[in-house]
Amino acid sequence: MDRRRLYTVLDPDSSDRAARLFRVVHHVLVALGIAAMLADSVPFIAADHDPVLRAGYYLVGAFFVVEYLLRLIAAPEMPGQEHGGPLRARLRWAISLGGMLDLLCALPAIGALARVPWAHLVGFVWAFKYVRYSPGLASLNRVVRNARQALLSVLLGFAIVLLTAASIAYLLERHANPDAFGSIPAALWWAIVTMTTTGYGDVVPQTVAGRILGGFVMIGGILTFALWAGILASGYAEELRRREFLRTWELVAKVPFLHNIGASLIAEVASLLRPRDFPAGAVIMRRGQAGDCMYFIIDGEAEVQLPSQRVYLGPGQFFGEVALLTGAPRNATVVASQACTLLSLDIADFHQLLGRHPELARIIHAEAQQRPGDVAPTLSEPALAIDESA
Amino acid sequence: MDRRRLYTVLDPDSSDRAARLFRVVHHVLVALGIAAMLADSVPFIAADHDPVLRAGYYLVGAFFVVEYLLRLIAAPEMPGQEHGGPLRARLRWAISLGGMLDLLCALPAIGALARVPWAHLVGFVWAFKYVRYSPGLASLNRVVRNARQALLSVLLGFAIVLLTAASIAYLLERHANPDAFGSIPAALWWAIVTMTTTGYGDVVPQTVAGRILGGFVMIGGILTFALWAGILASGYAEELRRREFLRTWELVAKVPFLHNIGASLIAEVASLLRPRDFPAGAVIMRRGQAGDCMYFIIDGEAEVQLPSQRVYLGPGQFFGEVALLTGAPRNATVVASQACTLLSLDIADFHQLLGRHPELARIIHAEAQQRPGDVAPTLSEPALAIDESA
Amino acid sequence: MDRRRLYTVLDPDSSDRAARLFRVVHHVLVALGIAAMLADSVPFIAADHDPVLRAGYYLVGAFFVVEYLLRLIAAPEMPGQEHGGPLRARLRWAISLGGMLDLLCALPAIGALARVPWAHLVGFVWAFKYVRYSPGLASLNRVVRNARQALLSVLLGFAIVLLTAASIAYLLERHANPDAFGSIPAALWWAIVTMTTTGYGDVVPQTVAGRILGGFVMIGGILTFALWAGILASGYAEELRRREFLRTWELVAKVPFLHNIGASLIAEVASLLRPRDFPAGAVIMRRGQAGDCMYFIIDGEAEVQLPSQRVYLGPGQFFGEVALLTGAPRNATVVASQACTLLSLDIADFHQLLGRHPELARIIHAEAQQRPGDVAPTLSEPALAIDESA
Amino acid sequence: MDRRRLYTVLDPDSSDRAARLFRVVHHVLVALGIAAMLADSVPFIAADHDPVLRAGYYLVGAFFVVEYLLRLIAAPEMPGQEHGGPLRARLRWAISLGGMLDLLCALPAIGALARVPWAHLVGFVWAFKYVRYSPGLASLNRVVRNARQALLSVLLGFAIVLLTAASIAYLLERHANPDAFGSIPAALWWAIVTMTTTGYGDVVPQTVAGRILGGFVMIGGILTFALWAGILASGYAEELRRREFLRTWELVAKVPFLHNIGASLIAEVASLLRPRDFPAGAVIMRRGQAGDCMYFIIDGEAEVQLPSQRVYLGPGQFFGEVALLTGAPRNATVVASQACTLLSLDIADFHQLLGRHPELARIIHAEAQQRPGDVAPTLSEPALAIDESA
Repeated sequence: MDRRRLYTVLDPDSSDRAARLFRVVHHVLVALGIAAMLADSVPFIAADHDPVLRAGYYLVGAFFVVEYLLRLIAAPEMPGQEHGGPLRARLRWAISLGGMLDLLCALPAIGALARVPWAHLVGFVWAFKYVRYSPGLASLNRVVRNARQALLSVLLGFAIVLLTAASIAYLLERHANPDAFGSIPAALWWAIVTMTTTGYGDVVPQTVAGRILGGFVMIGGILTFALWAGILASGYAEELRRREFLRTWELVAKVPFLHNIGASLIAEVASLLRPRDFPAGAVIMRRGQAGDCMYFIIDGEAEVQLPSQRVYLGPGQFFGEVALLTGAPRNATVVASQACTLLSLDIADFHQLLGRHPELARIIHAEAQQRPGDVAPTLSEPALAIDESA
Repeated sequence: MDRRRLYTVLDPDSSDRAARLFRVVHHVLVALGIAAMLADSVPFIAADHDPVLRAGYYLVGAFFVVEYLLRLIAAPEMPGQEHGGPLRARLRWAISLGGMLDLLCALPAIGALARVPWAHLVGFVWAFKYVRYSPGLASLNRVVRNARQALLSVLLGFAIVLLTAASIAYLLERHANPDAFGSIPAALWWAIVTMTTTGYGDVVPQTVAGRILGGFVMIGGILTFALWAGILASGYAEELRRREFLRTWELVAKVPFLHNIGASLIAEVASLLRPRDFPAGAVIMRRGQAGDCMYFIIDGEAEVQLPSQRVYLGPGQFFGEVALLTGAPRNATVVASQACTLLSLDIADFHQLLGRHPELARIIHAEAQQRPGDVAPTLSEPALAIDESA
Repeated sequence: MDRRRLYTVLDPDSSDRAARLFRVVHHVLVALGIAAMLADSVPFIAADHDPVLRAGYYLVGAFFVVEYLLRLIAAPEMPGQEHGGPLRARLRWAISLGGMLDLLCALPAIGALARVPWAHLVGFVWAFKYVRYSPGLASLNRVVRNARQALLSVLLGFAIVLLTAASIAYLLERHANPDAFGSIPAALWWAIVTMTTTGYGDVVPQTVAGRILGGFVMIGGILTFALWAGILASGYAEELRRREFLRTWELVAKVPFLHNIGASLIAEVASLLRPRDFPAGAVIMRRGQAGDCMYFIIDGEAEVQLPSQRVYLGPGQFFGEVALLTGAPRNATVVASQACTLLSLDIADFHQLLGRHPELARIIHAEAQQRPGDVAPTLSEPALAIDESA
Repeated sequence: MDRRRLYTVLDPDSSDRAARLFRVVHHVLVALGIAAMLADSVPFIAADHDPVLRAGYYLVGAFFVVEYLLRLIAAPEMPGQEHGGPLRARLRWAISLGGMLDLLCALPAIGALARVPWAHLVGFVWAFKYVRYSPGLASLNRVVRNARQALLSVLLGFAIVLLTAASIAYLLERHANPDAFGSIPAALWWAIVTMTTTGYGDVVPQTVAGRILGGFVMIGGILTFALWAGILASGYAEELRRREFLRTWELVAKVPFLHNIGASLIAEVASLLRPRDFPAGAVIMRRGQAGDCMYFIIDGEAEVQLPSQRVYLGPGQFFGEVALLTGAPRNATVVASQACTLLSLDIADFHQLLGRHPELARIIHAEAQQRPGDVAPTLSEPALAIDESA
């Protein structure tokens, strides 16, 4: 198995068969390893099944050691950094975040073999193995990183209020409540339990002044909460917009006749698209009408009522683009079979685009010449011929 | 009673009289059934009233069995899936989410008859009966489903932090606190109670290191909260925008002279509308002015000051559209009798639309010819004649 | 004192001197009344000061009875509902929300006189007296009312999860924990304390299954929270936009030469305005430049550097509008003395507006003729002459 | 050391070497001072190390006294308020918020010297010293201040519900639970602990009615939370938009040929910019294409593939602007080496701008004449020559 093949098998986004099998084995072993660690920490289970649990724990640990070595071997050269060869690529991977996490997950087994005490209790790090396979975490990571400064400012405010509250509580309560408020660090425990509204109840202020202070601390905690939620809501909305544009961009970049034009023009097309929602059953275009725009399906399903058959188009497919090329009237009625979200590209915008980019016109005319007379669109291929006149 | 009639009676959105009666009976019986189950679980009530409670419970249960059978019989053929007949439609309903829920709600009575123990304690499933009648849940469902990936990513992060915190807490606290932190699963109970800021107080870390860990876990819990709130806020804002467009779309689709033109044009009109807010008392249009736009009322109330009378228009009604057809000056002053939100359609946009869709012009001229001279608008009918010259 | 004068004194938004005095007395008496009630419920304070507290309580109560009667007498006829006279207006006020609240606040004193037990403990209703004076509550009220359906749907989901969790907890815990989970209603207490993440700790599940259930209930509670926060965030953003437009609208409506044109045109102008932010120290316009727009100040402060003096303009004032009338170059440099937010009205938009509304041109030319040569703007009057050439 | 130099050293945003050293010393001393105070409050630590801790405490306190005096001496004259000289400037600083906070932080040491009891326990005020160095707090402060009215309205609602709940709980529970609900103030403690969902568990309602009330109070608390989060989310989104515009504005203001034109024009340019996102690897412009816009980098990195070398541009830099000046085709291909966010300025918008501001054309032509033939852009200087033809 050469390095490229190995990399494909280990790639979390690969749709290769071996890669999918690897992922199943990986996920099951992570779950088993964590379960073994959990069970091993329960005295009455460990007493009965200790050898079995340890064996499972070592097996899973060994798997992660092997995985680490394989990933190290397979580490690919990054584009633009080909010099230095595989060794340099491996070093770069080893010091990347992913490499460090994998090393961390390889440690429990190594530690257990080396008879390090507690090594059989740190299997919880394996839970981080799932992180690589969670696409949404990358988005969340970006949201939190972008809002970093604001979140830390709230945290600083939180810390200042915490310290202030603990100091005042210590001054107010130390005589009434010497066990719980006997020092400022002890009062800090009360303050954080109160300010996060956790409220264990192991420490409760007894004086009237201490209780009034407690009320303000609780309200301060709610405000912290609300500030964080507000900051993250704004950040996440921004991220959603960003992702939406990139999705549009990728969708447009897939249209065959826009394929060879370059990203700046594709971005221009993407910014001309307008989202439109249709309720289920709405007629999107009618056979015989003049065609004035083309549609990309973002969400939902559209039914193309061709004379001979009915074709259903889903997200990522498009229709009506022939109108932009030939000016012929629509040759099919299209109905929203489910409520759907489309992006429409208007004929006027499209022709302005042509005026600014004459090379686009040449490509499109070549495309239009090649088209067959009446090709039925298939679901696996983009529905290029829907508007074709028979 | 034929199937179509039966379906109408059972339809949650039907305004049929029998349907409304059915809904009242249904809601009362759900409430009674749950009340009976609650009362039956309280020993001192059950001791006194057991036969009464059981009778009530069986009665309600039997009602749901009958309802299930009726819904099964009435299950309609879906448009486009008429083949296969009623049997196929019933099967499709039976395996739908609604069908499964109704079956679940029929089970308690069947179970109680079959003398399954606990059957009289699972009446809580009847609460799901209300779900079908809550229009907002569909929106919420869509929001949660769209944000599924992000919410699950937060949940994965939550789970990783939880497991890590429990493992570390076990290492730190197991000697000081052997009862509560005697195993990692036991420590997980503390971790989840702390991280959700519930804080029962049954398990509290005793060591300084454990308390510092606890502080971080609480703050991590707040961050989880805030992330979820942020994700859902963004998703809900998106959903609101979507619903708003569909509402506009339906409003426009109801204008008589746009009725027969097709959804793509209606969507085009809908995207030309601009929302405008008027404070109470503002003059929206003045008699004798040139008419430059028409208005659709979204919210609030407008007062049309005709020479002979005052007409009040509410949400869903529109006025000023004659200006778009005849070009005559306004024949009435319209005032916002309450603060109101209107959608305005500009005459310029409207004429551009006509340029692109000449068939629209023919429809409108036909419409304008048919209009009577001075018809007073009524509140039940759209106010089509307000701009008419006398 | 006639009814109109009385109404002015009682009006919460009146800037009348007597009205302001009334508000001070009112607020102090509400605070005193509540303080008296609080003190009266504390046994050791009540034992010593009972007659004083009771006297204070009766005094405040009597004040509210008198206020209720005065408000009833002063109740004004609504515009458009003048028929029926004062009696009808009073009846209408008495059954309005405000009237009912005022009646409620008059009851404690009446009840205490009538020797109703507890009458001296219901003074907490006086806190509602402050509601009338809190302008933000109206906005919040609208937000909550608009999002009513979604909030109630979340509440229904919350109730269903609560009932389900309580029933399952009862089944799981009733043997291990017969005191706390002895009936489903008892388990409901645990469920709500847990799901709101309050976690008193008086009832804690003991079985492993019960604790796993508890974990899910807590996470469900956080999700409920997050959903509500998300719904209200979206609703509040909408409300903010709405308020912003109304503020713009009112600002524009104050410009003298737009005064007599009607609301529809003012709304049109308002929609042409573009917000612009300037950092402190930025040069907004320069003496001698061609004037291409006028500005309305929304926030912050601008310094007009006239040859003879420096004038500071604040929110609600505007400048540069002479450019729209005469086309003369700017006759002053304007600098943002603080970071400020302006609305700008472009000359191109303004002239398009004139094209569509020729009557506007006549008004403006008349306005321009009347203008004096070099009038220094004052801070109390809109800065109409800043662009004037000397 | 003169006053200006001293001011530079103390300025939190200064990049002066001495200023950076001062900041490190300052932050370390704040941390040490707080640590000393915390340790001093723990009896068993204080018993052993009291003289050391006191010495450290006095040292830190003395530092803050000195810092206060230095800041007082260095207080600069504000622009436009030069009259009055240094003395007036110092007085103005002393009564500013920053001056008051610094005075507060100087008090503990003065108090300890004056043998004021507790003086060695109020070192927590030093935590406020960090506030000056947290840039995000200014934004948060503005968000909270703008949303002040809405937040206070929620707080008023919160207080009314609190008082009502406490009064009703007192009426319901005082016989069943005389210790905890023996007076309304005592019941208020329960109400606030419950409504903030803190739930210590020291006070729990015992009656059925009291528990039902408790459930409503908890749900009311969640709603308060959600309202605050919603208000702050909206406010923060607004603030983000504002900051984004100011950032764009500053970016544009740095373009050399726009340097001397004045803020109003720069604001006009800023409002013409459209954000565009490119995924990593996308071709932004291609050598030989006609240039139709220029780009400003906001985020990420772009790789300029010049014939001789590859240049990487980061946030704050721009490229492609020569196309706006000379109309020559692109002389380099630019690729997004990382996912990046750009602002694009379209050639059409730019020429319209020129039409309205002919003086701009003169500046640009002068700029274009001066340009060398083929200057390679450097990373420290704006990439002005990328489009230059060879």
